[in-house]
Amino acid sequence: MVIEQKQHPLDPLSVEEFHAVASIVRKARQDENTKYIFSSVVLKEPPKKQVLAYLQDINNSALDPPDREALVILIDRPSGVINEITVSLTQGSITKWEKLQGVQPTQHPEEMLEAEQIMIKDEKVIKECHELGITDMSTVYIDPWAVGYYYANPKEPKQDKRRIMQGLMYYRTSKDDNQYAHPLDFTVIFDVNAQEVIEIVRSKPHNSKYERATIPMTNHHFLPEHLDQDKLRTDIKPIEITQPEGVSFTVKNNHMLEWQKWHMHIGFNYREGVIISNVTYQDGDEKRSLFYRISLSEMVVPYANPYEPYNHKMAFDVGEYGLGNMTNSLELGCDCVGDIYYMDGVISDLKGEPSVINNAICIHEEDVGLLFKHTDYRTGKAHSVRSRRLVVSNIITAANYDYGLYYYFYQDGSFQYEIKATGELNTHVLAEDEDPTPYGSIVAPQVVGQHHQHLFMMRIDPMIDGPNNSVMQVDVVPASYPVGHADNPVGNAFMPTTQIYNTTDEAQVRSNAETSRFWQIINESKLHPYTKKPVGYKLSSLNTPPMLPKPGSIATERAQFATKTIWVTPYEDGQLYPGGFYCSQSEPRIGLPEWTEEVKNIRDTDVVIWLTFGLTHLPRVEDFPVMPVETCGFHMKPSGFFLGNPGIDIPPSKKITSKKSRTTKATNAEKEECHCA
Amino acid sequence: MVIEQKQHPLDPLSVEEFHAVASIVRKARQDENTKYIFSSVVLKEPPKKQVLAYLQDINNSALDPPDREALVILIDRPSGVINEITVSLTQGSITKWEKLQGVQPTQHPEEMLEAEQIMIKDEKVIKECHELGITDMSTVYIDPWAVGYYYANPKEPKQDKRRIMQGLMYYRTSKDDNQYAHPLDFTVIFDVNAQEVIEIVRSKPHNSKYERATIPMTNHHFLPEHLDQDKLRTDIKPIEITQPEGVSFTVKNNHMLEWQKWHMHIGFNYREGVIISNVTYQDGDEKRSLFYRISLSEMVVPYANPYEPYNHKMAFDVGEYGLGNMTNSLELGCDCVGDIYYMDGVISDLKGEPSVINNAICIHEEDVGLLFKHTDYRTGKAHSVRSRRLVVSNIITAANYDYGLYYYFYQDGSFQYEIKATGELNTHVLAEDEDPTPYGSIVAPQVVGQHHQHLFMMRIDPMIDGPNNSVMQVDVVPASYPVGHADNPVGNAFMPTTQIYNTTDEAQVRSNAETSRFWQIINESKLHPYTKKPVGYKLSSLNTPPMLPKPGSIATERAQFATKTIWVTPYEDGQLYPGGFYCSQSEPRIGLPEWTEEVKNIRDTDVVIWLTFGLTHLPRVEDFPVMPVETCGFHMKPSGFFLGNPGIDIPPSKKITSKKSRTTKATNAEKEECHCA
Repeated sequence: MVIEQKQHPLDPLSVEEFHAVASIVRKARQDENTKYIFSSVVLKEPPKKQVLAYLQDINNSALDPPDREALVILIDRPSGVINEITVSLTQGSITKWEKLQGVQPTQHPEEMLEAEQIMIKDEKVIKECHELGITDMSTVYIDPWAVGYYYANPKEPKQDKRRIMQGLMYYRTSKDDNQYAHPLDFTVIFDVNAQEVIEIVRSKPHNSKYERATIPMTNHHFLPEHLDQDKLRTDIKPIEITQPEGVSFTVKNNHMLEWQKWHMHIGFNYREGVIISNVTYQDGDEKRSLFYRISLSEMVVPYANPYEPYNHKMAFDVGEYGLGNMTNSLELGCDCVGDIYYMDGVISDLKGEPSVINNAICIHEEDVGLLFKHTDYRTGKAHSVRSRRLVVSNIITAANYDYGLYYYFYQDGSFQYEIKATGELNTHVLAEDEDPTPYGSIVAPQVVGQHHQHLFMMRIDPMIDGPNNSVMQVDVVPASYPVGHADNPVGNAFMPTTQIYNTTDEAQVRSNAETSRFWQIINESKLHPYTKKPVGYKLSSLNTPPMLPKPGSIATERAQFATKTIWVTPYEDGQLYPGGFYCSQSEPRIGLPEWTEEVKNIRDTDVVIWLTFGLTHLPRVEDFPVMPVETCGFHMKPSGFFLGNPGIDIPPSKKITSKKSRTTKATNAEKEECHCA
Repeated sequence: MVIEQKQHPLDPLSVEEFHAVASIVRKARQDENTKYIFSSVVLKEPPKKQVLAYLQDINNSALDPPDREALVILIDRPSGVINEITVSLTQGSITKWEKLQGVQPTQHPEEMLEAEQIMIKDEKVIKECHELGITDMSTVYIDPWAVGYYYANPKEPKQDKRRIMQGLMYYRTSKDDNQYAHPLDFTVIFDVNAQEVIEIVRSKPHNSKYERATIPMTNHHFLPEHLDQDKLRTDIKPIEITQPEGVSFTVKNNHMLEWQKWHMHIGFNYREGVIISNVTYQDGDEKRSLFYRISLSEMVVPYANPYEPYNHKMAFDVGEYGLGNMTNSLELGCDCVGDIYYMDGVISDLKGEPSVINNAICIHEEDVGLLFKHTDYRTGKAHSVRSRRLVVSNIITAANYDYGLYYYFYQDGSFQYEIKATGELNTHVLAEDEDPTPYGSIVAPQVVGQHHQHLFMMRIDPMIDGPNNSVMQVDVVPASYPVGHADNPVGNAFMPTTQIYNTTDEAQVRSNAETSRFWQIINESKLHPYTKKPVGYKLSSLNTPPMLPKPGSIATERAQFATKTIWVTPYEDGQLYPGGFYCSQSEPRIGLPEWTEEVKNIRDTDVVIWLTFGLTHLPRVEDFPVMPVETCGFHMKPSGFFLGNPGIDIPPSKKITSKKSRTTKATNAEKEECHCA
């Protein structure tokens, strides 16, 4: 297969490349009699050094582009043998093939649909439903989750090596009904490769006179067609957001995005979804590098309820399901508003063939209010500039939950990542007299929203003015001098204290709100001309609750990464997933804890920053039947990087009209047009 | 003067009422020979009980409206005697007149301009400027600040009873020049009533070979007309935000605002600026009360530098200057975009006459992205609803700083308050070889941005389904059972712990990020039908750094309110300002600490909540010469108040077009129109 000349080495596999990979792999297995599925097919990113060398001057490069390679994961059935296959697209052949057992790749969406269909026909499941009064199994819906943990032998707590899903059970009163209003009181433990039910685990009502919880039959719809049409709001007038001259950004070669002074590469894969690479900022004549690669690398959603079957709920949505696998096809006017450029995303189906997610990534600009304003109070002369941001986003659906994932780039050189958690609570059922406290909150009669957390880990591979960076912790504290001391006469003195992390063991740290702790990613080889200190970007998040499952709990052991707000590691090719590449049913402490077992230097070298942020969510009644977005995220801002506010060259927002004094009554809101330059 | 029949008792004084008040007061003093200025004229709000009784059924009320009263503060010159005068507009006469000495009302903007003109002509000031090489005093600018503290006798640290300003000194290279690029190295201590300079305090360079810092003469402009025109950005295409059918809100009787299911009253005065009162939400057939009154009641900006003259910088912008006094006249397309309704604000001038701030308050709607979305992953059927918010905002200029103050109301019953800090850093000068660390950061050669905090206190007078409310603290913690315990077999158990505050001493509490602490404002007399717990609203802020000046420092003693995140007090008429009504040069521990000296019941009674939030700001080079907005604020969300998400009755956002699969290359961003219903 011919690789296009000036293709970016981090471009995701194209539809043609997917076809080619599938064909090469299937051909290699055609003589075998083994059944297998393609779990994932993804670009195997070339080593960073190769990419950087090639990109130095991509258009005039004398270097050959790095080899195009794909990493393919096959699951043999029913053996569960994992085939880790490297396909060289450049050579048109398989270059590596390893067989593993006892590890579990991501659950493919089709595996889940398949599992549901098998479980629903299982006799034990049918019997259990019958006991609850269900005679028509087409009203039963099963959400298959990774099992969290399952012990072959509970006395010896090691993960069962089988590929296991837990099926969460729901009833629907009609096809479009909201199933989370009708949870059933049991979970199905399912062997995915053997395609058979292992066990049924019934939940036991607590402090209840009932032996079993009945199904709450009241509907809680949120789809407008199921609501009382007369009660829909009619008094919200349209807001139109348009760009009559088009957008201010350009997309080149499908994946290179240029906007204002930002340049970057947009990638996509089954696991991390959107990946932003090679981020630079044009500072005068200089194109300054900021980040090599940023992606959401893992997450964990631990639930609070300690009892069976609910204590299996600890979703690692990146590693267990894949953000790309769960990405929505977006619709204009609903998910994004304005002048939109969509990129498609490509994942593979169970046969390895490409499955295109149309409009997977939304790229657009937003007006986000003031960027800055100052008025000279003596003259009244005011200058205000509005803030425009470039948004690169996708939305995923993880069964009940939906997450909007937003990368924001601003005109003042700052960057933000925001997650909007929405969708539906993962409910479970209560007996009529059961009280879900303290592990959950009632959201409707007999329906409980279990308390849970969403902890996300961002992998940030910085390149602040070059590949060698350091990370400095900053804490702001009162000065040590007592009040009245010559150096603190009236007691107001306070100051930042700083610590540059030298080694990996120093760089595993929790946030500290009491010291307004933040981090500065710095380049110690480049001093700022004014401050005489290393140039840097500030990294901060206000959404850093501690992981609440106890140390030693299964959730915490598997998600060690989430127990610290920040980790810094030396860059290693292939270290992408802090909870392990094979994250489903993972053993304790794989990924980040493994990589940092040996203490390593992280000062003034090529480093990767791993940032945990998220939410602790005690569901409200108002989060049901569908949840208004809860947001969390982090910021990166230039701090001693530029020679001043990089946004002062933005022309002022244009004023069209300005009102006169008005002391008379206005009984209706006035209309006025507005245009911003 | 005739009071309009159906006037709302909390309507701010009208222009006519200002005239009437001034005339009544001036008449009463016409035989005196004393010189005086009007410091402030403001509606004296009637007792809450009277207001509520009258509002029960305002349009059919058999009750007379509460008396219209104004509170007038006069300052006699040069004696500094304060006249606290109550004028009854209903009766057309003065009903109360008290004289006080040794307290200092807010600085009127005109007092500051006047002070600058006097200081600039002072011989000591001229001499000091001459020594720095300034011969033309028209190039010198003085920002007069409240003095923070000033001791008549430094051995006996009591505030000097004179009305004192500190004049911060700057140079301009031209009329529109950015003065904060050229700070001078001294401060002028000024007696406002005597109109004379008391003293000049020079700053001493630290660890420097220089005796005095020279003036940094390099310009750091940000006004576009002073920038290189060729370097302004030209590649940002317009975004137009329009409402072709007009806005969705209505303003009645000038001050009543109705939008979607929200109803509220908008007030304005010299001190708190915008005040939101009588907030209700229409829940089906019931109009449910939420808040009696919300306003920004005080703030403090302590600076970190412990040395003279900089340790006097601790700005209480509400109490020392007045948010209303500093409110900008807004311009369409610059400050607000879209279809805007403006309200004017009225303050008094030094003669007590009304001074109208045109377009002081901006009221408009914003599209703010997703409100919620859920996709059924089996069918791909998606439902997404965009979020609309009503914004009530004003912008103030506090000398160098500018603050955007935003009240947001959402369609899901939630409320947010956000402050955008922008404008200019309060800089001071450095000697050529001076290092400002650890108390400041260099933002340009010889120019330092001193480290500081912005701590805001919101006064929230809740009325959750009635006047009697309680406040419950919620902390989320791991369960106490060890891992492996029958009640915590795999260690994931965690839970909220709650404490309802009984008395004022229990309710003086700092935030706690480690427990994701938030508060629930509840009505214990009204249980939610599902949860069987009191209905409530959740109150939370992520911007709650501790106050960093030490306990016992002047800043902390004067701003005791800011040392705790939350205080709860029983409602008392007239308790509006937590740092004291006479906040300038205040003695320690007035306001909130006084009111809570005696322990009082705050459970299931009429309470007021005082919330501190803010920012710790270590200036970046990128915050100069004008600062990109830094935001902070808080949220209030219904939590067990409604019977579900109150926004599910919003019709879906309309989809106009949806793209087809696109696997070909796109070299230019595509254009598409979008309309949202």
